[in-house]
Amino acid sequence: MEPPDFEHWACPLPLRDHPAVVMGHGGGGRLSGELVEHLFLPAFTRDRPDPALAHLGDGATVRLGGGRLAFSTDTYVVRPRFFPGGNIGDLAVNGTVNDLAMCGAVPAYLSAAFVLEEGMPLAELGAIVETMAAAARVAGVEIVTGDTKVVDSGHGDGVFIATAGVGVVPDGVVVGPELARPGDVVVLSGPIGQHGIAVLSVREGLAFGTEVRSDTAPLGAVVADLLGAGVAVHALRDPTRGGVAATLNEIARASGVGVVIRERDVPVPDGVRAACGFLGLDPLYVANEGRLVAFVGAADADRALDLLRRHPVAAGAVAVGTVVTDHPGVVVARTGIGGTRVVDLPLAEQLPRIC
Amino acid sequence: MEPPDFEHWACPLPLRDHPAVVMGHGGGGRLSGELVEHLFLPAFTRDRPDPALAHLGDGATVRLGGGRLAFSTDTYVVRPRFFPGGNIGDLAVNGTVNDLAMCGAVPAYLSAAFVLEEGMPLAELGAIVETMAAAARVAGVEIVTGDTKVVDSGHGDGVFIATAGVGVVPDGVVVGPELARPGDVVVLSGPIGQHGIAVLSVREGLAFGTEVRSDTAPLGAVVADLLGAGVAVHALRDPTRGGVAATLNEIARASGVGVVIRERDVPVPDGVRAACGFLGLDPLYVANEGRLVAFVGAADADRALDLLRRHPVAAGAVAVGTVVTDHPGVVVARTGIGGTRVVDLPLAEQLPRIC
Repeated sequence: MEPPDFEHWACPLPLRDHPAVVMGHGGGGRLSGELVEHLFLPAFTRDRPDPALAHLGDGATVRLGGGRLAFSTDTYVVRPRFFPGGNIGDLAVNGTVNDLAMCGAVPAYLSAAFVLEEGMPLAELGAIVETMAAAARVAGVEIVTGDTKVVDSGHGDGVFIATAGVGVVPDGVVVGPELARPGDVVVLSGPIGQHGIAVLSVREGLAFGTEVRSDTAPLGAVVADLLGAGVAVHALRDPTRGGVAATLNEIARASGVGVVIRERDVPVPDGVRAACGFLGLDPLYVANEGRLVAFVGAADADRALDLLRRHPVAAGAVAVGTVVTDHPGVVVARTGIGGTRVVDLPLAEQLPRIC
Repeated sequence: MEPPDFEHWACPLPLRDHPAVVMGHGGGGRLSGELVEHLFLPAFTRDRPDPALAHLGDGATVRLGGGRLAFSTDTYVVRPRFFPGGNIGDLAVNGTVNDLAMCGAVPAYLSAAFVLEEGMPLAELGAIVETMAAAARVAGVEIVTGDTKVVDSGHGDGVFIATAGVGVVPDGVVVGPELARPGDVVVLSGPIGQHGIAVLSVREGLAFGTEVRSDTAPLGAVVADLLGAGVAVHALRDPTRGGVAATLNEIARASGVGVVIRERDVPVPDGVRAACGFLGLDPLYVANEGRLVAFVGAADADRALDLLRRHPVAAGAVAVGTVVTDHPGVVVARTGIGGTRVVDLPLAEQLPRIC
């Protein structure tokens, strides 16, 4: 056979520091961004006019069969597979449902592809699959196609689940990370950090007094309500890997605007605050799975908050900041004591395999 | 935290022989079928009227945004990642493109989700991604969205790639594994067994005189030609895991018909025949990645063969059998010496991790 031909591929400069994959390449931070920008994007967008991938949203919006569709995918490799408030199954459904919702779409159909490790107990797989089915029902989506592969023991980790989803983007809806405008109000749908700390607490065998439960939940209905009411939503994102910090940075960069948040307005549950204090983590960087960040035209901000708070999953919605023309691409936080600090894009995630 | 709750899940009878995942659950044979039928299907189709998943095609056909779409997914875990004629990258593109084509759809957009193992060389990932990009260009599809996860060393195997795809099913096109009819001619688009033997030869370090190269190729254009010409194609499938034997069995069962093939009309390349002889394999059970099996109305069979043979990828198309009313659900082969043997659904795949 011919030897693998790597010759035509030259490692671009920012990737040279890491000639092999490191955990941070999957963390949703700067290293992830470099991999996408320098390895995936050049290959998949070359010679394509206006490639959908280049928008780097949570999913892609494409024209197909006369309609405008959102299309998104994620693989779930969370460890452990069961944690307070959920398991890999509802994560795999809610995560992809939410990515579609963040495109402004009404999620409709999911696919589910499983990579099973030889020796994985079928009863555990059964419980995960039942959780997926229940989550799909709650989210109003149908799992319509799938695949199962098995890898030999020691070459996987129980189960990885890749879900992809499609949904319809209603006429007139246009949201995107590049559409935030100066004056926009930054709305957060509830307290942060719960998913990341819930997983970490089981993984590390820690207890922080109050049990912290994952916030995993579908956000399709919340988004449909906002958009259906005609609220001027410019950008939408669920702050998963890399947390609220990564999300705000991505939107600030894509839109070429500055973002200022008021740190004391960002709701952090006691258990999350205690765990973060103990572990030296910043809650702004911890993953969420049932929260959204919306950049809303200022005139519509109060209405957006009212609509969000009607949903149990967004009952704790608050305005946490504004978009400014100063410091484009940079996110700053006004601290409780009157100072200001830069909220940078993390290099890697502090908590690998969180979703 | 609450302990994982497996209580509400009772292992159904046929799965009890295997309380844990075995390699055969991913092989596309009887064990795979049991997992789908007894574990995935009951959960994902419960309380759903006419669930798309229950059709068990290579993908699902759904109505969305005013059109009829095909939606499909597969994860690729092939080992080794590079083999004569291709690598995991073109496999991941062509496999999902072909699953869409087998629904009668025109493949349009793909998603790509990567599970990388810590330590995977970036140059190798770069070469795989370039191969995917090239394969997408040849197949006429665009990769529009994706995801990257990293798992710690020893919990993955270099790279797994999950692709999902969407395409439009043209008006009037209806194909499905349940639509084969007595009298249909079974058409095979070319020689069989090349992909499986190509991978196996590298994995096992075997040489069989003639090098056997994978047949990985996109079949969208071939299918579009057949359907566009109005050929009465009833069922379409690409004989991947489990080979032509599994494909014929699935269609025979879904349609409630018998299938008779003439063994000596099934083209088997010399290298494949030699390898199968050496290894004790039956070429009918070896995986293909660039072949299709079409069940075509008898009156259209010659026209189908003419159309297929115009494409290099289907230049070796032949009629290999017919559909009968006898022995519904059973596939038999007339052997060269005038006998008849049953071509059963394999229990598991002979060659794990072939795609």
